[in-house]
Amino acid sequence: MSDTRFDVVGLGNAIVDVIARTEDDLLARENLNKGSMTLVDEARADQLYAVMGPATIISGGSAANTIVGAASFGVRTAFIGKVRNDEAGKAFTHDIRSIGVHFGTAPATEGPATARCLVMVTPDGERTMSTYLGACQNLTSDDVDPELIRASGITYLEGYLWDPPAAKQAFVKAADIAHGAGRNVALTLSDSFCVDRYRDEFLALIRNKTLDVVFANQHELKSLYQTADLQTAINAFRAEDILGVVTCSAEGSLVVTRESTHAVPAYPIENLVDTTGAGDLFAAGFLAGLARDADYVSCARLGALAAAEVIQHVGARPQIRLSDLATQAGLTA
Amino acid sequence: MSDTRFDVVGLGNAIVDVIARTEDDLLARENLNKGSMTLVDEARADQLYAVMGPATIISGGSAANTIVGAASFGVRTAFIGKVRNDEAGKAFTHDIRSIGVHFGTAPATEGPATARCLVMVTPDGERTMSTYLGACQNLTSDDVDPELIRASGITYLEGYLWDPPAAKQAFVKAADIAHGAGRNVALTLSDSFCVDRYRDEFLALIRNKTLDVVFANQHELKSLYQTADLQTAINAFRAEDILGVVTCSAEGSLVVTRESTHAVPAYPIENLVDTTGAGDLFAAGFLAGLARDADYVSCARLGALAAAEVIQHVGARPQIRLSDLATQAGLTA
Repeated sequence: MSDTRFDVVGLGNAIVDVIARTEDDLLARENLNKGSMTLVDEARADQLYAVMGPATIISGGSAANTIVGAASFGVRTAFIGKVRNDEAGKAFTHDIRSIGVHFGTAPATEGPATARCLVMVTPDGERTMSTYLGACQNLTSDDVDPELIRASGITYLEGYLWDPPAAKQAFVKAADIAHGAGRNVALTLSDSFCVDRYRDEFLALIRNKTLDVVFANQHELKSLYQTADLQTAINAFRAEDILGVVTCSAEGSLVVTRESTHAVPAYPIENLVDTTGAGDLFAAGFLAGLARDADYVSCARLGALAAAEVIQHVGARPQIRLSDLATQAGLTA
Repeated sequence: MSDTRFDVVGLGNAIVDVIARTEDDLLARENLNKGSMTLVDEARADQLYAVMGPATIISGGSAANTIVGAASFGVRTAFIGKVRNDEAGKAFTHDIRSIGVHFGTAPATEGPATARCLVMVTPDGERTMSTYLGACQNLTSDDVDPELIRASGITYLEGYLWDPPAAKQAFVKAADIAHGAGRNVALTLSDSFCVDRYRDEFLALIRNKTLDVVFANQHELKSLYQTADLQTAINAFRAEDILGVVTCSAEGSLVVTRESTHAVPAYPIENLVDTTGAGDLFAAGFLAGLARDADYVSCARLGALAAAEVIQHVGARPQIRLSDLATQAGLTA
């Protein structure tokens, strides 16, 4: 993609994660759905924060994590998302820019605070998220710079953008501009409950060819096709005639096209600490491979490598340079 | 100490850590003294933040880390320190209270922001700190609640309190009240450059019996006695006739009294990630032992255990319950 300024531009909710280790009984007491993301208002976010243990604050946001991961592989990246000009918004901006991502979306100077996601990590490493969208609700299609989209090989979108009302238009605008310029559009389905909220719209996006690549985990894919059987869901996915990428936690991933399905194992790890960002970083590695015109199996191997790094520490952003990790692992990105 | 409400009350700078992995060449470029703590003004803090990589934000502060560590061992603890009522100050307050520490110091409602410490962690795990004291400069002796000090078995003070001008009076007031109530007073020397700034005052505190227990690492002790030879420094320390606790990184620790010197090995670790908080958590374990009337060698073993936990992840606060860790290790606290 030598005629591009960026390999990947991401559009997503700009969120700061507030991460605390939690016992399982707190989830039960607070009626939280383990492993899922729940939207909460500010009062509920404050109430949950009050009952959480000591927290670590790290920039997050699904597509933002993916873009930072791709940048860490050395890929040329940009991000579009809305923060408020508060302490958390400044931290988000610092973090994403400091790894070389182009991030020029104007911060909101009034209105709700920068979005925060309360991440409760249980002893099994699973994360349960409660998100206050805050300033993300002010992301509109005006924030989508057509030049930036046209200058990017892949436009990467997160399903969570369907939650803040105006962001949906930003999503559609970005996809339209990308396709108008002959670029590719990718989506992550984000969360099985998110799929449940917007199933018809996501299926329409797939079937009207708005999307070229779709990332899903097994739960999201089963939710998309309303089946308890993964193979049934995969067969339906194959019939869509797109590039489908399905992550199955420790069982690895599947690359699904109309022609074939390739299974790629997960990368071995020593200690599972916090699964936050596993799917986001898998997508980062896969996109890094696509940006370098790697074959799909190689892309999935890079995804597995990045996911393995991020689940061995707290937080959804890589702690070491993923390009170095790829070199050490004998992979190239 | 059954007539006490708290086993340990800590008095220190209330600081939020901003931690980033850094290459050694950045330290050289910015003229930072590896392994040490440097005081910076807000403009310099902003400039260093701008050149730092993506950061993790976790509550810190030397004495606060120690008190949180002691609380994690199940010890009854309280903390006195000054934050501003901003986002960072709220995070500090949440984190210390959520682990069960009594923290009632009124936040500043105007003036400088909550203190922040920019922590650069190099690939060898060593940390180099640049601290903007901010709201800590507003800690005064009015913040020292006499009832709280009298109700605590040990008053634990950090040498860094000598930096903000008014905090020194708070330190002396707390020590006087504690001794007046027949309690013990402990000090950590904090940093070799801090010792260099206040050597005469620290020696006077030791020699006029303001202090019953002094924690130091090998560099701080050598700085205190202005010698390059550790044994010379230890001999001088023994002659002070206090309880001295000397940490020597991977070489373990020494418990020094006039009568004897006991060496206690470091606790074995798998991966050194970030040494931030090693000394603070050693003190936490030692104080937890003292609170339970353990012998000094057992106290030092608990210190070694807590230090080993904190250097295997990013940040200076324990990520698992130290009382559980002690039980697993066959130690009691």
